[in-house]
Amino acid sequence: MHFQTPTIPDTTSPALQQQLQTLLDQKTKPVGALGRLEALALQLGLVLGTTAPRLVQPQMLVCAADHGLAARGVSAYPSDVTWQMVENFLAGGAAVSVLARQHGLALTVVDCGVRHDFAPRPGLLVRKVAPGTQDASAAPAMTAAQCAQALANGQAVVQGLPGNVLLLGEMGIGNTSAASLLLARLAGLPIEDCTGSGTGLDAAAVLRKTAVLREVLALHAQAIGPLDALAALGGFEIATLVGAVLQAASERRVVVVDGFITTAAVLVAHALAPQVLGCCVFAHRSGERGHGLMLQHLGAQPLLDLGLRLGEGSGAALAWPLLESACRVLREMASFAQAGVAEKG
Amino acid sequence: MHFQTPTIPDTTSPALQQQLQTLLDQKTKPVGALGRLEALALQLGLVLGTTAPRLVQPQMLVCAADHGLAARGVSAYPSDVTWQMVENFLAGGAAVSVLARQHGLALTVVDCGVRHDFAPRPGLLVRKVAPGTQDASAAPAMTAAQCAQALANGQAVVQGLPGNVLLLGEMGIGNTSAASLLLARLAGLPIEDCTGSGTGLDAAAVLRKTAVLREVLALHAQAIGPLDALAALGGFEIATLVGAVLQAASERRVVVVDGFITTAAVLVAHALAPQVLGCCVFAHRSGERGHGLMLQHLGAQPLLDLGLRLGEGSGAALAWPLLESACRVLREMASFAQAGVAEKG
Repeated sequence: MHFQTPTIPDTTSPALQQQLQTLLDQKTKPVGALGRLEALALQLGLVLGTTAPRLVQPQMLVCAADHGLAARGVSAYPSDVTWQMVENFLAGGAAVSVLARQHGLALTVVDCGVRHDFAPRPGLLVRKVAPGTQDASAAPAMTAAQCAQALANGQAVVQGLPGNVLLLGEMGIGNTSAASLLLARLAGLPIEDCTGSGTGLDAAAVLRKTAVLREVLALHAQAIGPLDALAALGGFEIATLVGAVLQAASERRVVVVDGFITTAAVLVAHALAPQVLGCCVFAHRSGERGHGLMLQHLGAQPLLDLGLRLGEGSGAALAWPLLESACRVLREMASFAQAGVAEKG
Repeated sequence: MHFQTPTIPDTTSPALQQQLQTLLDQKTKPVGALGRLEALALQLGLVLGTTAPRLVQPQMLVCAADHGLAARGVSAYPSDVTWQMVENFLAGGAAVSVLARQHGLALTVVDCGVRHDFAPRPGLLVRKVAPGTQDASAAPAMTAAQCAQALANGQAVVQGLPGNVLLLGEMGIGNTSAASLLLARLAGLPIEDCTGSGTGLDAAAVLRKTAVLREVLALHAQAIGPLDALAALGGFEIATLVGAVLQAASERRVVVVDGFITTAAVLVAHALAPQVLGCCVFAHRSGERGHGLMLQHLGAQPLLDLGLRLGEGSGAALAWPLLESACRVLREMASFAQAGVAEKG
């Protein structure tokens, strides 16, 4: 596979970290009283390399693709829902469309491999590797060349987007299966712990899904490395997102990670270049079984825990105002000295 | 005490609830996939009596007052910080000022009983019952007449504010003690479980604070009813907030509750009129010990859990965009039929 992981800068900086911490501690509040928001402010300062971070031109990137494995009945919805939801994203009626509009997030939908031909229009990028992956229970989901193509697509898409912050979203009937497979393989966890109800399978259907996924893992027992695992088990939208994460981190953009599927993309990116985590803000803990384990594997603490299990980038959009708040705390709050407020006795 | 609890309308409505649930279930997402946001949308629809709720002219009401009990060393900060922070709120440098500006929340600061004379200015309402309460370890914090005055002040302030949603904030050195006392008394819990570090006491100081609070509870062992407890143990800002909550609920305004102190006001309001809870959205679980118990007593599930322990209304402001999102989901998301998306197979 001809894919060269880009160089990811190290966002840690003891000097800047000390400056940021001092600034936060001098703000008119008890030390640490803004809790997780202070840790977030510190991280955003480090990623953007400043004590006065400002998030500009936020980009919501929703990557969509179809999955050959869906033919095995691993989803509660038919594959056609992938392209129908892409149309819904573009028409403004989906959750992510509504939330992006609320927060002024530019929405770009990427056809990474949907089994449908879309009419061109603003907000849609066609970067289709193929019309859906192969059924991973019969063959690798994609060839090495296809995987490299999707990764390169993700990098190029981000290069073409303005701003210093990227929010990740996705759509793809069957893609919780791909995420569960990647989690099981890359974190070395039992597939039954990684598999959940996705868009709403009942308990019996989850058992059938788990059996299919176990079969897939056995078939691709040799796909151990992150790129081999991605090609064998992943999806075009996930591979495109991996490229996007790597590119964003290489440019020190803040990356806002949504739920189970986008975190799976970060899992792969992290296996290739652990420093990507410095740029990643984890928006929420999904209601999907497995997401908690994935976050734990990455040592990630998400901002929200609202039982969301929709994907699309909806959780990333919901958490977005917290990132803006964290920056504003650093930029706009007065210090004890500035405000003439007495310090702790 | 001449205080008449206003009539609080019942926000439950099986017919409207069914309509709202059907609408949510028809939106282009798996049933329940937006988790807690869907429950929030349903609640906001019920409070505002519509399937297309819209929050207008949100008002952040920050009530401030001083506490005689602060003389007993129950806070890490001197009492002067109360008026200094009020100046900071009005100058725009405090956390709540910054967050209110971010979200377009109109900020009103009420001097409910600060030990300081403020120059008049826009955004400040002087509704001072007295310059601080009495030391509750020596006498009731306020007289019955003072308590009734503060309650009436809170009602009148809300009557004078526009909009259909009220966010609650507060400032008052010593007021975690008042909140702990009210929790212990009204929920019947041991004071040591209700007492925390407030603005940052160390473990030894928390023990001293707990001993003082135990003494206060013993002195006012007869103050059992909600209004008697409020007068003996509370504060002017808390009593004003109780009046504000009752008034807002009587008008079917949405009430966004912040942390430990504002939840204590809801605790008192709830003891007077349990139906107020229908209007209350609990913004976050505070890092202050006791807040979790208070939420549990009220059966409340907060939206955020970020380890905040600042007060001021900062947590209410941080949660605010989630309320807007919930309304927009109902108003703006397409249904499966509208978007031409296939339903679950």
